[in-house]
Amino acid sequence: AASRLRLSGLCFLLQILNILLFAVFARYSPESSPSHCPPQLDCSQTNQDSGFQQPRFWDVHIQVLLSFGLLVAFLGRYGPGSAAISILIVAFAIQWAVLVQGFFHFFLNGKIYVGAQSMVSADFCTAAVLISTGAVLGRVNPVQMLLLALLEVTVCTLNEYILLSLMGVRDSGRSLTVHTFGAYFGLMVSRVLYQPHQDKRKREEQQDMGHQTVFAVVGTIYLWIFWPSFTSTATVLDNAENWAALNTYFSLAASTLATFILSPVLYEESIPRMVQIQDATLAGMAVMGMAGEMLVTPFGALIAGFLAGLISPLGFRFFTPVLRSRLKIQDTCGVHNIHGLPGILGALLGTLLTLLATADTYGDRLELVFPLMAQGSRTVTDQALIQLSALPLTLLLAALGGCLTG
Amino acid sequence: AASRLRLSGLCFLLQILNILLFAVFARYSPESSPSHCPPQLDCSQTNQDSGFQQPRFWDVHIQVLLSFGLLVAFLGRYGPGSAAISILIVAFAIQWAVLVQGFFHFFLNGKIYVGAQSMVSADFCTAAVLISTGAVLGRVNPVQMLLLALLEVTVCTLNEYILLSLMGVRDSGRSLTVHTFGAYFGLMVSRVLYQPHQDKRKREEQQDMGHQTVFAVVGTIYLWIFWPSFTSTATVLDNAENWAALNTYFSLAASTLATFILSPVLYEESIPRMVQIQDATLAGMAVMGMAGEMLVTPFGALIAGFLAGLISPLGFRFFTPVLRSRLKIQDTCGVHNIHGLPGILGALLGTLLTLLATADTYGDRLELVFPLMAQGSRTVTDQALIQLSALPLTLLLAALGGCLTG
Amino acid sequence: AASRLRLSGLCFLLQILNILLFAVFARYSPESSPSHCPPQLDCSQTNQDSGFQQPRFWDVHIQVLLSFGLLVAFLGRYGPGSAAISILIVAFAIQWAVLVQGFFHFFLNGKIYVGAQSMVSADFCTAAVLISTGAVLGRVNPVQMLLLALLEVTVCTLNEYILLSLMGVRDSGRSLTVHTFGAYFGLMVSRVLYQPHQDKRKREEQQDMGHQTVFAVVGTIYLWIFWPSFTSTATVLDNAENWAALNTYFSLAASTLATFILSPVLYEESIPRMVQIQDATLAGMAVMGMAGEMLVTPFGALIAGFLAGLISPLGFRFFTPVLRSRLKIQDTCGVHNIHGLPGILGALLGTLLTLLATADTYGDRLELVFPLMAQGSRTVTDQALIQLSALPLTLLLAALGGCLTG
Repeated sequence: AASRLRLSGLCFLLQILNILLFAVFARYSPESSPSHCPPQLDCSQTNQDSGFQQPRFWDVHIQVLLSFGLLVAFLGRYGPGSAAISILIVAFAIQWAVLVQGFFHFFLNGKIYVGAQSMVSADFCTAAVLISTGAVLGRVNPVQMLLLALLEVTVCTLNEYILLSLMGVRDSGRSLTVHTFGAYFGLMVSRVLYQPHQDKRKREEQQDMGHQTVFAVVGTIYLWIFWPSFTSTATVLDNAENWAALNTYFSLAASTLATFILSPVLYEESIPRMVQIQDATLAGMAVMGMAGEMLVTPFGALIAGFLAGLISPLGFRFFTPVLRSRLKIQDTCGVHNIHGLPGILGALLGTLLTLLATADTYGDRLELVFPLMAQGSRTVTDQALIQLSALPLTLLLAALGGCLTG
Repeated sequence: AASRLRLSGLCFLLQILNILLFAVFARYSPESSPSHCPPQLDCSQTNQDSGFQQPRFWDVHIQVLLSFGLLVAFLGRYGPGSAAISILIVAFAIQWAVLVQGFFHFFLNGKIYVGAQSMVSADFCTAAVLISTGAVLGRVNPVQMLLLALLEVTVCTLNEYILLSLMGVRDSGRSLTVHTFGAYFGLMVSRVLYQPHQDKRKREEQQDMGHQTVFAVVGTIYLWIFWPSFTSTATVLDNAENWAALNTYFSLAASTLATFILSPVLYEESIPRMVQIQDATLAGMAVMGMAGEMLVTPFGALIAGFLAGLISPLGFRFFTPVLRSRLKIQDTCGVHNIHGLPGILGALLGTLLTLLATADTYGDRLELVFPLMAQGSRTVTDQALIQLSALPLTLLLAALGGCLTG
Repeated sequence: AASRLRLSGLCFLLQILNILLFAVFARYSPESSPSHCPPQLDCSQTNQDSGFQQPRFWDVHIQVLLSFGLLVAFLGRYGPGSAAISILIVAFAIQWAVLVQGFFHFFLNGKIYVGAQSMVSADFCTAAVLISTGAVLGRVNPVQMLLLALLEVTVCTLNEYILLSLMGVRDSGRSLTVHTFGAYFGLMVSRVLYQPHQDKRKREEQQDMGHQTVFAVVGTIYLWIFWPSFTSTATVLDNAENWAALNTYFSLAASTLATFILSPVLYEESIPRMVQIQDATLAGMAVMGMAGEMLVTPFGALIAGFLAGLISPLGFRFFTPVLRSRLKIQDTCGVHNIHGLPGILGALLGTLLTLLATADTYGDRLELVFPLMAQGSRTVTDQALIQLSALPLTLLLAALGGCLTG
């Protein structure tokens, strides 16, 4: 009874806090059209989409949807019991992320200006939080989950601010800031909260096989349908968008086939289970996060997706046991294999592609994908080094934040 | 066997009737672009969206989808057995609503001109019918359901015509014309058809717990994804749209948190069931119906959603038993708590906001949200009175129509 | 074990082959805007959508989604066990179709230029493959399925190329090239692979009733929401699009009612099962494929949908047993009734409407729907004859291809 009321009280407190903070700080941005944006305000992100009203409008929906796509992804493993908590996390994290991100990006004259753009950024953060919860699901109670969300949103925003705004890293599909960050944050929390015994949860998992498959099917379809637009919404131009969406599709298709190749070899099953296919789908997406808009040829996307699809089941088979026994990290949903490894792969691929980026292959798109390079204020090598250095920085921040939270 | 054939025969009759009426009256509008709209035809509604092709195109899909979102919402309570009847109701109500609404809005030279706009209006009506059926589900047979749809579409269209066209009430998200009307119409029908015994249905409900949760999860996700666009499609400008969508999101998030606050207190469960979360989501939407485009600050949306999220479970706990024992109204799906009360709250909020609306806070948007006030032909107080008077009028029409139908 | 490894090996081989072929041939189209399209390249299809960026962008998503809509449709009958194979088929068929279609449509200087348009065409092909697999599901193993996809994509592309590019047949919703072709291809394969005994599968079907209903509900809703846009994306203008979408809606509503009329008469059930409603929905769609953009009056769509909704259950009742006993064709999912017959009906309706098409009734739209007729290079009768002759040609190609594959 006490723990029940503690959750209830915490929710009440946080909601009242949010309402007060919103009342004091948040206002709708005076005009959503960039021409009316006050010059002091950082409108650079908003500007990217200007003249392209429709996608920005849809952005918002698609992002939230994808937070839920991830949610459904975890449901595939844990059944509807965890859905209620996930929705609680989403409902709180979105409000909180709008506030925290507002302080970093849209702060002016003591007010935060809220628009569709801030909702999109908040959704990205919420996605990272959901990935992290995947690592600790079943071992922390809802109150701890809420506190985790509270802290992670802050650290995640800080990481995003340093990478994207200060360093000028291109990470349109958020391989680093969402996938890698979320995965390693969750893993560090899991490490700190290490408990040797967790048999109870496993039985529950077995019981729910029927629903698990239903959710996995629905989740996979959701992701196939909407993730390509997710990857592409954050890119600049209609043209580049198409490339990002197509690259993601090819990556998805290749990583799904890769699962069918490895699964019979590793697990001695003729056909992989739906949950494995869903994992492959997620891995194929995570790898395309950064590189999606940079790849110039479709076969590159096929190879990247293929590799991601191979890494993910191999990680489950050989890496998760090592993690568990040696490093004492319990990874309930396998976020390391699904989001962590492909995210790192995607970041390395993005670095490689940045090195190869020349005005010849990119043409007009160079200006859009790497504006600093096109202006001549940064060389190819500099940009590649910056992209590369973003990886350890993200890992460091995620690890520190995770330890702290744990 | 006789009742089976009666349903079959009624469907046949109604479909043939529809085909004949369509053959005699309905034509596609000559051009969907407003410039070609003949001056005698009431193109005002179409004009609102002009120059913004894409949303109008998507409108249609989103609306039908939402009729189904509601459908899924009820499925959460009654299992797939009732899905077939709901789809029958939707399939019939859409055809019929296009006809009836056409007579009110798009009638010219003895012909109805059908376009995307009429499909959207028809979808709104269908949503109201689905809400009403929620109140009587399990106690009327399909034939009665069809007759209910037949009559309710007519009364609903009449109500909409009086409120929106004659009185100039702003109700973009249809707090009044869909949510409140649908809920009280259904409740009156339920009152007239009062039967003391209904034990059989309850057992069936228990049996279907597994599917219930699955449907509730899917339904909640659907609503989160698509309702904000629903609220915003009927508003005027891209800018106003963004506000409406954002307001709805904040309202949703707050009302979900409110459920987590109240549920442990009221039901002694640590985590609310998915069906309760879905109810809170619906309540958070219903309250934003009218006020969505009028709210100028995000914290207002948070407070409104928070209140709606609190009212709905309290209503279930304390109000539904009173309704049942004193007023002899059986409310199978709790539409009074989910749609009725939040709808009234939303209408009152809309009135309050209209009173507070000044040119200062709204700026250019005043012209879009309250065109009559901006033109000076109506004062703030007049508009607020009209908004307020729309509430009892809707209740009256819903009650009368419900009695008649019952 | 051998068969497991054979599947794994085949997947590996095909994926490597795809990567190699993409590496050699496929490049992204230099600019997605048609103005930059090199004159030697066949840009006619791309041109159709020019100036209308948004739909083309969404096209891609909606199409893949619909491939999955169909997938879910079959899931309704076979449970999640077959979902994994279907997703494998989709993942492979999309890659392969992009290649094969590229050779026919976008081949220039030894390179295929891949864009959003090619992805859309590939999705159409994948949909046809999924329909075909519906006829043989449960009787072929995954390896055979992959080979079927390999061959069918090739024949389907050939058929599409002959009909749409060489003969100038209008088939925007692909009544012929997707529905009819897919159904009869699958039936011929089924004929060749005829096995007298298949009792095992039936039991499994019974077992899965619960999930079946869940999937049928979700599938029906998916189709209602997204199919109208599917039909309309391939048409030319915003205006024509609206007509196609509205026609499809009316057709859907009428065919659903028709199921409620026939089902009590044929099966002695008071309410049709969800799977039957889903079949009616699919039939109502297939019939609108070709005629969707040609119908000038809403009541035409109602009648067509009504007929399709009547044909489909009648086919199940009287035609499937004949097929099985006389022609020795086993049609596991009833694709003949759902896709085959309504597709033929749609093609005949399209021919009739072409005959009736005059400049009077169509106005400006004539130029868009039948560009060759508007230019005067083809008479009404010629176009109608061509539309009609496309039907036996499609049947012939489907039958030949099916035999060969079997």
